[in-house]
Formats: sequence, structure tokens, C-alpha cells
Amino acid sequence: MDKEVVGEVRVPAMGGDGENNNWHNGPMLGSFDDGLSDVIPMLDEEKEGEPDRLYVSTNQSTVVTVDKDDDDDGLSRPLLVRRKTMNLTSQIAIIGSNVCPIESLDYEIAENDLFKQDWRSRKKVQIYQYVILKWTLALLIGASTGLIGFFNNLAIENIAGFKLLITSNLMIEKRTYMAFMTYASCNVVLATAAATLCAYVAPAAAGSGIPEVKAYLNGVDAHSILAPSTLFVKIFGSIGGVSAGFVLGKEGPMVHTGACIANLLGQGGSRKYHLTWKWLRYFKNDRDRRDLITCGAAAGVAAAFRAPVGGVLFALEEAASWWRSALLWRTFFTTAVVAVVLRGFIGYCRSGNCGLFGEGGLIMFDVSSSLTSYSFPDLMAILSLGVLGGLFGGLYNYLLDLILRIYSIINERGAPWKILLTVCVSVITTCFSFGLPFLVSCRPCPESLKDSCPTIGRSGNYKNFQCPSGQYNDLASLFLNTNDDAIRNLFSGGTDNEYHLSTLFIFFAAIFFLGLITYGIAVPSGLFIPVILAGACYGRIMGTLLGSICDLDPGLFALLGAASFLGGTMRMTVSVCVILLELTNDLIMLPLVMLVLLISKTVADCFNKGVYDQIVKMKGLPFMEAHAEPYMRNLIAGDVVSGPLVSFAGVERVGNIMHALRLTGHNGFPVVDEPPFSETPELVGLVLRSHLLVLLNGKMFNHDRVATGTSELFTRYVASDFAKAGSGKGLKLEDIEISEAEMEMFVDLHPITNTSPYTVVESMSLAKAAMLLRELGLRHLCVVPKVPGRSPVVGVLTRHDFMSEHILDMFPNIRSLNRNDVRTAVSGTPLSGPTDPSGVESVSND
Amino acid sequence: MDKEVVGEVRVPAMGGDGENNNWHNGPMLGSFDDGLSDVIPMLDEEKEGEPDRLYVSTNQSTVVTVDKDDDDDGLSRPLLVRRKTMNLTSQIAIIGSNVCPIESLDYEIAENDLFKQDWRSRKKVQIYQYVILKWTLALLIGASTGLIGFFNNLAIENIAGFKLLITSNLMIEKRTYMAFMTYASCNVVLATAAATLCAYVAPAAAGSGIPEVKAYLNGVDAHSILAPSTLFVKIFGSIGGVSAGFVLGKEGPMVHTGACIANLLGQGGSRKYHLTWKWLRYFKNDRDRRDLITCGAAAGVAAAFRAPVGGVLFALEEAASWWRSALLWRTFFTTAVVAVVLRGFIGYCRSGNCGLFGEGGLIMFDVSSSLTSYSFPDLMAILSLGVLGGLFGGLYNYLLDLILRIYSIINERGAPWKILLTVCVSVITTCFSFGLPFLVSCRPCPESLKDSCPTIGRSGNYKNFQCPSGQYNDLASLFLNTNDDAIRNLFSGGTDNEYHLSTLFIFFAAIFFLGLITYGIAVPSGLFIPVILAGACYGRIMGTLLGSICDLDPGLFALLGAASFLGGTMRMTVSVCVILLELTNDLIMLPLVMLVLLISKTVADCFNKGVYDQIVKMKGLPFMEAHAEPYMRNLIAGDVVSGPLVSFAGVERVGNIMHALRLTGHNGFPVVDEPPFSETPELVGLVLRSHLLVLLNGKMFNHDRVATGTSELFTRYVASDFAKAGSGKGLKLEDIEISEAEMEMFVDLHPITNTSPYTVVESMSLAKAAMLLRELGLRHLCVVPKVPGRSPVVGVLTRHDFMSEHILDMFPNIRSLNRNDVRTAVSGTPLSGPTDPSGVESVSND
Repeated sequence: MDKEVVGEVRVPAMGGDGENNNWHNGPMLGSFDDGLSDVIPMLDEEKEGEPDRLYVSTNQSTVVTVDKDDDDDGLSRPLLVRRKTMNLTSQIAIIGSNVCPIESLDYEIAENDLFKQDWRSRKKVQIYQYVILKWTLALLIGASTGLIGFFNNLAIENIAGFKLLITSNLMIEKRTYMAFMTYASCNVVLATAAATLCAYVAPAAAGSGIPEVKAYLNGVDAHSILAPSTLFVKIFGSIGGVSAGFVLGKEGPMVHTGACIANLLGQGGSRKYHLTWKWLRYFKNDRDRRDLITCGAAAGVAAAFRAPVGGVLFALEEAASWWRSALLWRTFFTTAVVAVVLRGFIGYCRSGNCGLFGEGGLIMFDVSSSLTSYSFPDLMAILSLGVLGGLFGGLYNYLLDLILRIYSIINERGAPWKILLTVCVSVITTCFSFGLPFLVSCRPCPESLKDSCPTIGRSGNYKNFQCPSGQYNDLASLFLNTNDDAIRNLFSGGTDNEYHLSTLFIFFAAIFFLGLITYGIAVPSGLFIPVILAGACYGRIMGTLLGSICDLDPGLFALLGAASFLGGTMRMTVSVCVILLELTNDLIMLPLVMLVLLISKTVADCFNKGVYDQIVKMKGLPFMEAHAEPYMRNLIAGDVVSGPLVSFAGVERVGNIMHALRLTGHNGFPVVDEPPFSETPELVGLVLRSHLLVLLNGKMFNHDRVATGTSELFTRYVASDFAKAGSGKGLKLEDIEISEAEMEMFVDLHPITNTSPYTVVESMSLAKAAMLLRELGLRHLCVVPKVPGRSPVVGVLTRHDFMSEHILDMFPNIRSLNRNDVRTAVSGTPLSGPTDPSGVESVSND
Repeated sequence: MDKEVVGEVRVPAMGGDGENNNWHNGPMLGSFDDGLSDVIPMLDEEKEGEPDRLYVSTNQSTVVTVDKDDDDDGLSRPLLVRRKTMNLTSQIAIIGSNVCPIESLDYEIAENDLFKQDWRSRKKVQIYQYVILKWTLALLIGASTGLIGFFNNLAIENIAGFKLLITSNLMIEKRTYMAFMTYASCNVVLATAAATLCAYVAPAAAGSGIPEVKAYLNGVDAHSILAPSTLFVKIFGSIGGVSAGFVLGKEGPMVHTGACIANLLGQGGSRKYHLTWKWLRYFKNDRDRRDLITCGAAAGVAAAFRAPVGGVLFALEEAASWWRSALLWRTFFTTAVVAVVLRGFIGYCRSGNCGLFGEGGLIMFDVSSSLTSYSFPDLMAILSLGVLGGLFGGLYNYLLDLILRIYSIINERGAPWKILLTVCVSVITTCFSFGLPFLVSCRPCPESLKDSCPTIGRSGNYKNFQCPSGQYNDLASLFLNTNDDAIRNLFSGGTDNEYHLSTLFIFFAAIFFLGLITYGIAVPSGLFIPVILAGACYGRIMGTLLGSICDLDPGLFALLGAASFLGGTMRMTVSVCVILLELTNDLIMLPLVMLVLLISKTVADCFNKGVYDQIVKMKGLPFMEAHAEPYMRNLIAGDVVSGPLVSFAGVERVGNIMHALRLTGHNGFPVVDEPPFSETPELVGLVLRSHLLVLLNGKMFNHDRVATGTSELFTRYVASDFAKAGSGKGLKLEDIEISEAEMEMFVDLHPITNTSPYTVVESMSLAKAAMLLRELGLRHLCVVPKVPGRSPVVGVLTRHDFMSEHILDMFPNIRSLNRNDVRTAVSGTPLSGPTDPSGVESVSND
């Protein structure tokens, strides 16, 4: 075996130190470190008649040498050059310093003896326990999320309603200054409270939360995403933020809230306060928790939009990265529970027990249009609505990205700055919403109206706003309402001339602007409502403009406009469609909504990614995409393995393990058996850091290098000892104290080694390896050598190794290679023909 | 390398011939063939206090020896015993005879030089071609399916309507006998026509088609599932069958029709008639075709139920085995097109241009109940409805299974018997539907009714059926209508006393019985309609019975009853829920429908599997389940590898290849390079049979064992030559003529070898290997040795090797092992402690 000892850790030769690269068998791979790191040798084609194939690739800071005369040797010369000083961005490169606090989740079942023992020893009754508990947890998640969703609504409707009522009353009494001061101070106080909570208690609670949940379900365990403190701030911050009149929604935060609740329930209380429960031990693994959190996210959407089917589809389309049929079934149950709970509470509130909360059944915006058919001009109008909506959506994403980057500079300065920023935005929002209605003139109330006009209460379509009796201010009807009521007003049908075109333009511009500057402040803020609001307004504008051509209701146009904006920013299709249908209770609209969504998404996809993907990327979360990047087809698994690999023997010296754990941040270590435990060195499997810590803490050591076996382990441990650790709540390395004498003893790793790790041969194309990691939700992927006679494992691939930043750092010129460049084949057979590898487009992968 | 020559094919030693089993390293595996095949040695536990752990497993025809005194050695004794005469059921066991005509589909991208070359040489314009074509095909699939769906409806409504109109008129004229003869002869003629078409032209068109589509999307390519002849018969057979008054639906056949259309369009015409198109060459692979067929299945549901969102969900929940986010988006587009097309046609028909076809917009059964709230007794009533519905659903599945088994005996006798059976069922159905209404007495028309009563036309709620004027026969209103109209009548609200309880009981019993005996006859027959019909009737019965306790509308109860039956038989949740919502346009019902579905599915799941899964199993289609069987955790990949393995050298003698192709039915062969092409034997990759045939047909042979390389290949072939073959339309072995001299020549396999096959180490647990195969949609899985120094590949696992029949045949005692039995660990480390492996329950896998 090809090993060398670095410190006391045995490190098989892997990259980084030139002379050990003999494990590469392709001609290109043999010359990684021959000093060509910044020179890209090119070669021309033997084939004639294709002059366009002679291509010179230029990198920004790279000298390109085109070696035209070197025909034959050129074919065995490298084109892809590995950076010599590699691994600068790798979190495992700087040994011992875990630069990145983000860990992956472990969805793979660690099939070690311990697991097998535990699994087999489960009795029938325990299996029933598990199944019952699984459904009970789904029930609890649904019930709690529904409860909190209702509580949120209740609090917001009451606080905001009270605020608006006072303001409105003062306005009627013509005490305009007093009204403004009341309104502004309410807003600023609420905003400051929310921002303070968020900035000091749980910074992770800021923003929508959907990108974080999405990343978590992709396998990224960023710090405190789902902590109880985040849950607390998410609930109360969201209430404060929405009540403060910001242009933001409670929908995104509800998704995050649902996920937090699921996480909390899945943990089964807190070990800190000794609140654990024996039954919950089966859920102390990432797989089951992932399922629970998927249910939680679905429940969140269901509670926010009162859309149970939409919630399931949202979890499927946007949130989850892995999906099983059983999960569909369980999320469906959870959202059904949410719907029942919400319905119960709303029924209770109908009798007037809930203060200012009163309106609405399960359907929030009851459009119930009288649409029966549509003509060709209508379709054309809808097409143009979709195209424009897509353009606006793309623009929205672009601007949001820009503003978030600016805000991050401010926010990084500390909590006081965050609060200051929030207060500034609050003041701007207040001024806009109170000041702008003065710009428009009063409009006479339409005749033959069922509703009262002007409305005196806190909501309603026709706000008085100091207009003479019998008249109303249409802009105030939109601004001096909660966002939900504003949307309801915009969606309302049969009110063709309710809003003047100039009013709609002013409102659209204001909301578009306010929505952009609001996301990014230190308050839980959803994106759905601003987008729907802007979209509905845009749709109504289009409807008013196109009123002469087509005879669709402007309320209907508002709905389609909202759909087009949602399609343009979120890039979701089926789930948004179903959510909108459930929101508006109007199935007849289905084909139109589908059409608009498809068009706007298609248009916007030409410009940038969906807003949540953008935020995930900006936050630096290592998200594994569903398909591999095209350039990965030109690399093999062995190419990106970044060293040094730390592996253990089946029975390892305690000191070696401690040293390795201290020195590296690795979470999985290959275990290699050597004589006398096996005839030749062979890969036993993979051992997890958390399991090692528990084992070391137990100090079941031997003086000799002997296999103690599983039985002795079981006298000391039960499987749940390891499982607890596996859930990330385990021991820390610093907690373990091992004496000098113990350091020289041996410990048997076989019982805790996962003997069935997924492996790939080093010559497998990176794209395929990435698919394997992604589809099966792996954390570690062992790379085994193609040719025997070397170490039985050449490296471990993790999520990090598939990130484009990492790969592009290792192979700086790979992006600049295009289809016409040449790379010698990795297959080991030198090609002598006119090959033109290195395509950058993926074709059959989408 | 450990090889021996059988005939002229080099076969590495693998199972089957005892002495070569040295590649097993576990103690248990080393003694496969030591004569213990039918003896299961047991051993007791060392652990005290658990006497129940001493367990004797008995197999039906097995002598069990419990070796109680053999404590220590027992642990290293085998418990799992491989059958000595193994592989009897394996399709590759009897060499040369391909006993099973079912092939797997190949979803993996064969990353050979040819593919790489083709992929890289694609220009930007070709990629746009591909993308445009992909969407165009989705559009075409949607449009064609919508068109055919409409055509189906039009034909059925006209034929059945005409039949019912004549019968009804004759009845009014009191010519009862004449009416019966007309009705019966119409039915029998239509049934005979449909059965003849089905029995002689395309037997694969019989039945629902959903199980076949489901199996196809799982990767099973059974004979002529999606052939054009099947499409033809499916359309016209379905029209005949439904018009003939059978208790069957057109919904399942529509799904199959959609899939057939997608397959046909994806093929891009026929090569037989020289109708191919260059652009379509990119679709000549199983991956793209799978996506198209998923779209087709979704379009089918969308067209059948006029439920676009339901179609997408159906494709996701029931049909597809693999799902990608991009697919959601494309199926959504397809179903949107279907909805628009249908809507257009229905709008056209409103003006009365379509004969007897007239009713209904996009919503088929417009319930539009006035439900606003429900009380606790209502919920209790609904709960019991769900439980009973689940019981009935389970019973339905059980009886259907039984009847299908009886029918298969009749159907296997040949086409005339099939037709005879169909005619018999037709006569029974006719007698029931015409005769039973005579049993009930006439009922007076309700007062204050908007509809005319009795109705004279072909549909309507109140059929006269020789009743005096002002009265109607309620059973005739259900029987002498199309199934769609009968459902509409049952769903109709505000008609509390329209149907007498005895009428409903008679109808329910008759429909339940007829539905059961109808599925399985040689006519395209959907299951949705019989189940909805029986369920709606059952719901109305419950509604009438529980009318005193709760005050829900009986039409609403009918809807919930239909939901409970659908949940109980199909076991779908979200998709059925959405389909029902889209059918009835009643979102308020959502939580209730969800609840009923969940309960009935849960209840029915206690008894048996869903009806489609049952049929898939009965048809013997090798369906890969989403999770591995629990006993697979006790096996390793190496255990189930069934030999003999046939591999080729990188440059192979033509004679060897021809011999291997003739001798085996294998579709993939590992390619192993040996000196001088590599230093040690190494696995180059996998070569496909279809590619080999094309290569051999080209006769690009050499006299010497030299690598010709890729360039020469490209002078002779373009990539699409191989792709066409890859789509299963390629050459046959018999077409290739190779002279004796050519047999002794050599051919270079490197350019067509997929160099990145997925591999597993032989010691990986079978459950994990199964997940790999299933999740990534593989056809071949190479098993590589754990310890070097042997052949670099020990076997190839295919779908077949994971089928429980195959595994249980190899290890006959594995089922009888329960959790308390002992199997020595596979990990190579003998256990010395109280282990109790071999559990049969999966816990964390669901």
C-alpha cells in the first residue's frame, strides 16, 4: 500500500504532493504537477476541412501557448490543467481549521453492525411504535402549524386593524397630522421591535426562510436554521413586520415556521432540560427528520395560504430535493390537518370572538368570476400579460439581487445597523403609504353598490380618506389597508372603474420599489405577498388598458397578473397554479392561469434564476443541483478528489484517531483492513466522526491490536447512544479526555463501520458521480481505484467536491474550454482521431 | 484472471460450479454448495433470559435441523443457504433461450467515445433544435391527446345516446320486447366488435392500460405495450366498450392512449415507410422517450377527466417512477394544452354542431354544493364513510384479483374464447340494466322542479320507463344512461328523496358485481368509472341512512363515497383528490375529501395492495419497488449475482462476440482490458448488445489484435446509427452474416464501450444496490470485487436479479427466517456476541 505518515495520521498518497500521483492511468492525469499549471497547451486537429476547430482558449490571467507543431505528442499532453496551489477554497484544505460552518446532512443509512443489531432487535411493538409515532408527529406538526398560522393571522389582523382603525378615525375627524403621527409611530415601534428581536436573538430568522428550508432539505445543515430561537423570532418578528405595514408577507416565514416546528417536534424535547422520550429515539437521524421537515414546510404553505393541496405541491416542487411516494401521502395528511384546524378556528371566529379578525372562510380571495368563455383577443391579451410579467419578474430578481448585495454590506456591520436600516425602510414605507393618497383626487362612489361606500371600518374597498361624503380615495383603499385586504380589493370583480389608471400606476411603482427595498431588512419577510400585490396591480393596469379589446373582468386580470409575476420571480408552476386556485376558488380560470405561468416563467428563465435559487447562491449554501454541470462530463471522479485522505485501520491506535479528529474536520473516514485482519488491504467501510467520538468517550480500549468485536461493544452501548450523536447533538472533541497511556492503546472500529458505503471507480465521469450523490442523498462517496494493487480507496468525495467554485478553482481553464477544444480521453486508450471533446452544453440532461 | 473457456466464450468463474466460489470472503458465503441446500441449520442464542429467541423455522418441504449443541461453530455456519440447482427461473439461466420476452429500458447515458463525440459535436443550433423539438413534442402530445379525448367522447355520446334514445322511444311506445331486443343487440354488436378488435389485432390493448404504462415508466419494456396497433385498438375498442353499456370507463384507456401517442410521436414516424426526420434523432433513446410518455400519461388523465392539474399529479403519484423538476414543468404544459384544446372543441359543440354531444364545460360534474360548514356529527358520519369505503375497496381488489385469475384461464384458450367471454358479460350487463328497473315501482315527480320530469331525451335525472305521466322510475334513471350521466345523477344535489333506498341498494350491488366481472374481458376498460359509480351509490346510501344525524346533502355524500372507494382501490391520494375537485368544481369540499381519502386508503392498505400494483404483479411485469425488501439487507450484492458472466476483451475476436451474442440474451457485456492494453486486467466499461450488432454489421475488422481507435469508426458511422439501434429498432442477430474468415478477425470495442458504468463492490448490501439501480434508473450494475487480484468484474446485476422471485428461488429459506434467527455477518469479522440478525421488517425505510 502506498502510504506515508504525516504526523501520526496515515495518509495515503493523494494529490497535492506530486510524486504520488502514480495512480492516474490516463496520460493527461499523469502530468498534473509538471509545472504547466498556468499554461494551457493546445493542439490542432488532424482532420482537414474544419479550420474552425483550431481554437485558442484564453483565460483572463493566463498565458496560452498553442503548440502547433507538436502533433503527435500533443495528444498525450494535458489540456485540463490542475491548479498547482490547489484547494485554497476547500474547507478541508486548511487542515484543522474548519473554515466553513456548514455541514452536510447524513441521509444514508450507516449499515454498521450496531445499526444492524439495533434494527434486527426491534420487536414488532417497536415497529408499531415507530409507525404510530410517525403519523402522530405528522398530526402534531399539522396541528401546531395550523394553530400558529391562525395565531399569526389573529395577531396581525388585530394589531394592524387597530392601528388602521385609529388612523382612519383620526382622518375622519380631520386630524391629519395626528393621524400620521399615530400611524408612523405604530409602524416604527412595531418595526423596531421586530428588527431588535431578529438582530439580537436569531439573525437566521430574517428573510423569507424558504431558501434556507430548501437548502436544508437538499442536505445542507447551516447553523441554527431550524433552532427554537429562530422559530420564536420567526413567529413574533413576522407578526411585528406584517403589522408594521411593510410590503412583505407572512407566507415565507410560515414555511420556515412549519419547518422549525417539525424539527423541534422531531427532536422530541430538549436534552438540555432532560425532556426526551424513549419512543423518539428512532427519529434521531437525518432521514426521518428530513421527512418531518418536508411535512412542516408543506404545512406552512397550507397554513399561510389556506391551500392544503398547494402546500403539498409546494413542498414537492420547490422545497424538497428528494421525494418518495410515501412522503406525498404523509404531507397530504399534514396539510389536511392544517386545513381542518384552520377551518375550526375560523368557524369559531365567525361568531365574533376574535376581535377585529372576522372575514373569510378557507378561501381567502373569493373571485368567483362569471367567466364562461374567452375569445381570441382575450388569449392575445393574456399572452402579452404573461410576456410582460416574465420581463418584470426577471427584472425584480435582478434588482433584488443587487439590493441584497448592498444591504449585506450594511447588515454585516452589526445589529444596530440592521435595526437602523429597518427603521429607515419603515419610515419610507409609512411616508409612501400615507402620503401618496393625497396625490389623487376623490372619486364618486359608484351607484347601485351593495357594499357601503365610503367604508368606515378598517377594511373595505372604498376608503374615505378625508373625501367628501359619497366619495372615496381609491389609492388610500389600497395603501391604508393590510396587504391581504389590498390584494382582495385588487382581485375584486365587477368593479371596472373602481381604480383610476393613474392610481394603479402610482401604486404599482410604489409597491415594486417598496417590495424590493423591504426584503433584506432584519425582519422575517415573505416574498409572495409583495409579488402578488405588484402583479395584481400590474394585471389590473393591463386589464384597464386592454379593456377596449377584450372583455375580461379587471379582477380576473389582476389574478392573471399576479400569476405572471409569481411565475416570473419564483419560477414555480404547478404549485403556484394550485395555490392561486385554492386562494381564489375559481377552477374555471385554470387553463388561463396555467398559460400565463408557463409564458412568464419561460420568458424570465432567459434572464436569470428563480429568486430562491438566487438567494441560496448568495448565501453561499452548497446546494446540489438536480443535474450536473456540463463540464463535469469532462472530468472523472479521480480528478476532483482533494486530499489528504485520512483513513484508519480496522483496529486503530487511539492516538491516531484523536490526532486525525483534531487535525481534520472530516466527518467520514474510510476504514481499511490490513493483514492480519485480511489477506490484502481491503476497504471495510466508512466510519463517521460522531460515532468515533462516542466510541472514544466510552474508552473501550485494548492494549493489543485485536478485534474486540461487536459483543463487547453492546455490553457498554445501546444503538441510540450513537444515534443521538448522529443527530448532531453529540459530544464535542474537546469533551473527550484521553490519557497518554490510553493514546497508545487500540480500539476496534469494525462494529461502528458502515460496511456498505457507496463507491465509485475513480474513472467514472464526475457528472455521473454527482448524480449518484444527489439522487441518493449521500454525504460521502468513496472513490476506489480502477487498477488493483494500490490503496483500496483513493479518496472520499463530498458535497463540497462537486461545487462549481471548488472545481473551477482546481481547473481554472475549464470554463473557457469550449466544444472545439481537445482533451485527451480519460479512457486510457489514446485517441488518434479527430476528437473534439469538452462540450459545455448539456443536452440530454434536461 | 480467473477464467475458463466455455465454448468460445470466456466466462469468468461465477457461481453455479462450486469450485470457483473462492471470491466470497464471508464465512457463510464460502459454503454455498456444500450440500446443505435444503437443510437450515439453526443455532440458539448465548444470551439468557430470552427463551423466545430460540426459533425453529420450518419451510413447507424442508427438514430443519436445529443444531443446539454446536454453539461456537454454529456462529460460523451458514444460515442462508443458496439452492443448489439455482437459476431455474432466471431468464439468463438457460443459455440461449430467452424465456422472458420482457426487456429493461436503458435510461443510463452510455458514455462511450461515440456518445461523447456526438454530444460534443453538437452545435448551438442543434441544441436549440433539441429544446424546441422537446416542447413541440409536448405540444403535439397535448394537442393529439386532447383531440382524441374529444373524439372519444363525441363518438361515445353519439353512439350510446342514439342507442338509448331509440330504446327510450320504444319504451314510451310500450314496445317493451322490441326495446329490449334493440338495446341488447346494440350492446352485443358493439361488444363483439370491440372484443374482436382487441383479441385479434392488439391483445395488449385489453384492460386499463395504467399498469402497463406504470411498468413502462418503471423501465419494463414488455412486448407491444405502446405499439401503434395498441393505440388503434385502444381508441376504437374503448369507444365500442363504453358505448356497449359495459360498466367500465374510458379514463384508464385514455392514459394508455396518451402514452401510445407520445411513443409514436417520439419515434418520429416509421422507418418501415421511410418516414423519419433528422431532428428526431436526439429522441432515439429511452430517457427522452420516458419523459415524453410521462407527459402522454398526464395528458391522458387531463383529457379523460378534463383535469389538467390532476393529470400532472396522477403522472407524478401513480405513473412515473422517476421524476425531475423539469418534467413537472413539461407535463404541466402538456396538460394545459389538453385543457385549451378540449375547451375549444366543447365551445364549438355548444352551438349544437356535435349531434347528441352537448352538455358540460370543462367541469364534468358540477356539484357546486351550498355547503358552508359542517358539524361534529357530520365529521363522524364522514369518518365511518371512509372506514367502510376502505373495507369495500379492499374487498373489491381482492375479488378483482380472484376474477382475473379465473378469466386468465379462459382468455388463454384463444381469441374466440375471449370474444365469447365478452359477449357473455355483455348479455349479463344488458339483462341487469334493462331488467332490474322493472323491480322498483314508479315514483311521483317532485314538485317545484326546474328540470322536466319525466325526462324524454337521452339523459336527465328522471327517466320515464313506462311509468304513468308525472312519475319516473328511479332505477332506470341510473341504469338506462351512460355511466357519466349516472354519476352526474348520483352527484346531483338538492334532490334528497330522488332515489329510494332500495333502488340504491339494488344499483350498488349490481354495479359492484358488474364492475368486477367486466374488468378482465378483452375490451379496453378503465377502472375509475366503475369505482366512482359504486362509490357514489354507496355514498348516497350512507347519506340517506345517516340523513337523520347529519344534514349534509346526499349529492355531497355521493362525492365523498366516490372518494372513499377510489382511495380504497387505487390507493392514490393527492391526485384523486385534485381530480375529484376538478371534476366537481367544489374547493370547499377539499378538507372532507382529503379526510375520506386518507381514511379509506389507510384502512384498505391493511388488507392488500392497490389495484394497479396488483395487476402489475399478476401480469408478471418485473416492477422495481421504491424501497428494497427487508430481507435484502441480509444479502450482499455478490450473493445474487447469477452466472455465467460473459465479458469481452477490449479488442475481441469476432467469433467470440458472435458466439456470446448467440448463446446469451444478455444486453450488456463488461469489457475488460488485459495486457498489452493495460498493465493488469482492468474494467474498461460496459458494451451494449445493440451497439455490438451495429459494429459487427459494419464489419470493420482487423486481422490482428490492435486497437483501431475511434477515428476509423467515425469514418464509417455517425452516432445516430447506434442511437437508432439503441431505441430497440435495430438489427437482429440473424441479419448479420459473417464469414468463417471474418470470425477469426478482431474488432476494437473501446469506442463503443461506456466507460462510466455504475459499479458496486460485491460486499454492498443488496438493499443499497437495489436503491442505486432504482433511483438512478439503471439497467446494468457492475459488481466489482472487494479484494484485488481477481477478475476486475465479478458480475452484472440487472432488474431481474432484484426480483423477489429470483432471490427467493436462490435462497429458499430467506422468507422463513425471522428476526430472531442468526446469520453470520457478511462483514468478514466473525461475531462472537449475542447477535440476532435477519429481521424481516423494514423500519426506517418508509
